[in-house]
Amino acid sequence: MTAPARPGGGTRLLIGNDLTEEARNGDGWVRWGVQRLLWFARDGDVVVLPVDPDPDFLRHATALTGTDCATLRVVVPPPGPPGSEPGLLTADRLAHEGFRTALRRALGGRAVRRVVALWPDVTVAELARSLEAEHALPGHAFLRQGGGLLVNSKAVFRAVAAGAGVPLPPGTVCSAPQEAEDQIDEFFRAGRPVILKHEYLSSGTGNEIVSPVAGIRPIGARRVVRLTGRPAVRAHLAAHWDRLTSGGRRRLVAEEYVPDSTAHFAEFLITERGAELAGHGEMVSAPLATAEIIPSPGLTPAQRTRLVDGGRALCGPLKAMGYRGRLSADAIATPDGRILFTEYNGRVTGSTPIYGVIGEQVVGPDYARERVLLETVWPDGWHISSFRDAERRIEAAGLAYDRTTRTGVMLISAFDPRRRAVMYCVVAESLPAAREQQRRLGDVFSTRPAAPAAARHT
Amino acid sequence: MTAPARPGGGTRLLIGNDLTEEARNGDGWVRWGVQRLLWFARDGDVVVLPVDPDPDFLRHATALTGTDCATLRVVVPPPGPPGSEPGLLTADRLAHEGFRTALRRALGGRAVRRVVALWPDVTVAELARSLEAEHALPGHAFLRQGGGLLVNSKAVFRAVAAGAGVPLPPGTVCSAPQEAEDQIDEFFRAGRPVILKHEYLSSGTGNEIVSPVAGIRPIGARRVVRLTGRPAVRAHLAAHWDRLTSGGRRRLVAEEYVPDSTAHFAEFLITERGAELAGHGEMVSAPLATAEIIPSPGLTPAQRTRLVDGGRALCGPLKAMGYRGRLSADAIATPDGRILFTEYNGRVTGSTPIYGVIGEQVVGPDYARERVLLETVWPDGWHISSFRDAERRIEAAGLAYDRTTRTGVMLISAFDPRRRAVMYCVVAESLPAAREQQRRLGDVFSTRPAAPAAARHT
Repeated sequence: MTAPARPGGGTRLLIGNDLTEEARNGDGWVRWGVQRLLWFARDGDVVVLPVDPDPDFLRHATALTGTDCATLRVVVPPPGPPGSEPGLLTADRLAHEGFRTALRRALGGRAVRRVVALWPDVTVAELARSLEAEHALPGHAFLRQGGGLLVNSKAVFRAVAAGAGVPLPPGTVCSAPQEAEDQIDEFFRAGRPVILKHEYLSSGTGNEIVSPVAGIRPIGARRVVRLTGRPAVRAHLAAHWDRLTSGGRRRLVAEEYVPDSTAHFAEFLITERGAELAGHGEMVSAPLATAEIIPSPGLTPAQRTRLVDGGRALCGPLKAMGYRGRLSADAIATPDGRILFTEYNGRVTGSTPIYGVIGEQVVGPDYARERVLLETVWPDGWHISSFRDAERRIEAAGLAYDRTTRTGVMLISAFDPRRRAVMYCVVAESLPAAREQQRRLGDVFSTRPAAPAAARHT
Repeated sequence: MTAPARPGGGTRLLIGNDLTEEARNGDGWVRWGVQRLLWFARDGDVVVLPVDPDPDFLRHATALTGTDCATLRVVVPPPGPPGSEPGLLTADRLAHEGFRTALRRALGGRAVRRVVALWPDVTVAELARSLEAEHALPGHAFLRQGGGLLVNSKAVFRAVAAGAGVPLPPGTVCSAPQEAEDQIDEFFRAGRPVILKHEYLSSGTGNEIVSPVAGIRPIGARRVVRLTGRPAVRAHLAAHWDRLTSGGRRRLVAEEYVPDSTAHFAEFLITERGAELAGHGEMVSAPLATAEIIPSPGLTPAQRTRLVDGGRALCGPLKAMGYRGRLSADAIATPDGRILFTEYNGRVTGSTPIYGVIGEQVVGPDYARERVLLETVWPDGWHISSFRDAERRIEAAGLAYDRTTRTGVMLISAFDPRRRAVMYCVVAESLPAAREQQRRLGDVFSTRPAAPAAARHT
């Protein structure tokens, strides 16, 4: 229970926050998703979370990272008002006097050497200021003035990317339904589908595809809506504008949807010294994000270079604006081989702990050359009763991650009791080997369907 | 009526547009204000305006700039829907087929060599695209994706300025009333007034000051509201949030208001090569913008250096983001000598034609060393019946601008028949000499009030 001295003195403060707006999806995932923060915990850290951490996940993750749980101090502020999402560290919760007292007690007189937050929110900058730890939060001045919104807006992204000469799908940023109608109509007259993106919602949850033709398979969007003619487009926008733009408070991106593309990310760390490539991978959606493969397997070397060069070109303006931290540049590889950038995310993404901790730290610095990481959401139809249940059955099947072979399965998220699900990551020597492990997991967790269940699934 | 060949071939396309949102002030000024575009007209230009230009102002301005009116082609699109502001070049007006035909006729087969728009709107980028003249609009890619909003937002400004290390008044950017309440309360507890700024409205029309103490004189804001205690702040925000944020669609800046400061601008031209200082001056408000003095008279050399250095530091990120064009950096000089930046404006401002055409071109390249330009709105109580009336009486009084002495008065805007007003600019050898000319103008235009009029004014 001692707090060991850190190099350079002081301690780290980790904050498991998320954009308020994100959580409006209302599926309750945020309270489990933000616990990915625990992958970053090192001995002596003070950890702020919106909910008590899942103790099984905390034990599982720190056993893999070698962090001594007993040296961590976890502080959870009192909940927000009744009805509010418990998974969010809102401004009022972070400002709560009881929380501030508990936080000072957890710090125990140690200075804050570094603030690590999942989301670069103004509330994090405020908290750092209240602890006289502005210096410990890279890009503090920018974040304190709401800059975090700029490095996570799909609307700002398109302007900055276009300005930096980064290739984009054709399209535009719309403040009004008429602008969207004009843009959609232009694409429709060429027979092309259009993806509509809310400025902030992530993981495809704010996206939908509208198409003048049938047979479009949605990838990275909730659905495809077929519309014929300008009046139908106008009616669709009139009916859905409020939802697509949070009641007109946000802008809407309307861009050409290129079917059968694959999706990739290149993530950078922006510091005073510049932008350094931190990791890259492929994102698999069906239709929404279901898996990631790190490193990205499906690109030619020339495409990978274009992905990394484009991502780096995006970092330049963001660094000039004052942002410091992670930047994930997302792009599609189209069937005809183009690399077109689709958004950026200036935050600790879902990928960051995969490549940055599970890859770099647990598997080892050569992870991207020697291994493939396949991170997957828990499939419907795989049945578990708890985190511990999943962990035990993986161990019993001999599929758990093995430090000697540097292959096997890790559970990488807290348990979601509503969906009875947990995210997992397979480490293998190749993608086919990872798929084989995944198949064996399926054997463990798929209940052989009895007749009524089979009927239900067909 | 011939269109002379331009150096490099092709012609220039000038667009007298303004931000749609600006015009919601509803005072009708926009339809006169945008005619400042005519100062930039050169032989052979094609000029797009929302209304027919004031012929007297067109003649007056082009006589001073030496532009041959007969070589200009002015194109005015059909008006928007009934009830819309006639002074705005909205997307539908610029897309109107009849307008596009008239524009092509005015171009008469000449290529567009350069597009000059007052406001860097996405509609201008669209128009350039429709003319296959993207190359003629600097920063086209950035503007086409709505980048113009980013370089004119007071909220984005604060993040970018803080990130660039440019000094700001303490304060923050608020998305919700609670955030504003917290920030105001913090200032109020220190006895300090706060200026609230709508993200986009300009010339102080979107600003108001709230103060915990009496006796604050509003400069650069519509009014001062005295509020005592947090409940009063909360009630004020609840009552006015919609107006202050355009119904929650825009963000609100809340920053410390430093009484008795003076206001200054440094305007730059951002090109591929970098940022070049273009002009600077002092802005006089009482309470809203009434005059500008170019060059800025009230700063020490050290303060002027800080103004220019800070403005240049703002240009770096904007250039990196892809913006090309004018950037005015506005700052206050506080009574204790600090220079604190308050907003930026990425557009052709009201100052641009003053220093860039009236100064540089009409007075001469040495204007800032040898002369003072005093630009003023028409005072209440100065009576004129028309532009021509004002022009004639200035001439008759021997006060008109004289090319030999390089001193005298120019009328610099179209006539506003509603207010019976026109803006004017005095050129003089010194600020006291300019004030003396102004006093003599007052003698010409002030009607000695008869008894009933006097009663009306007290």
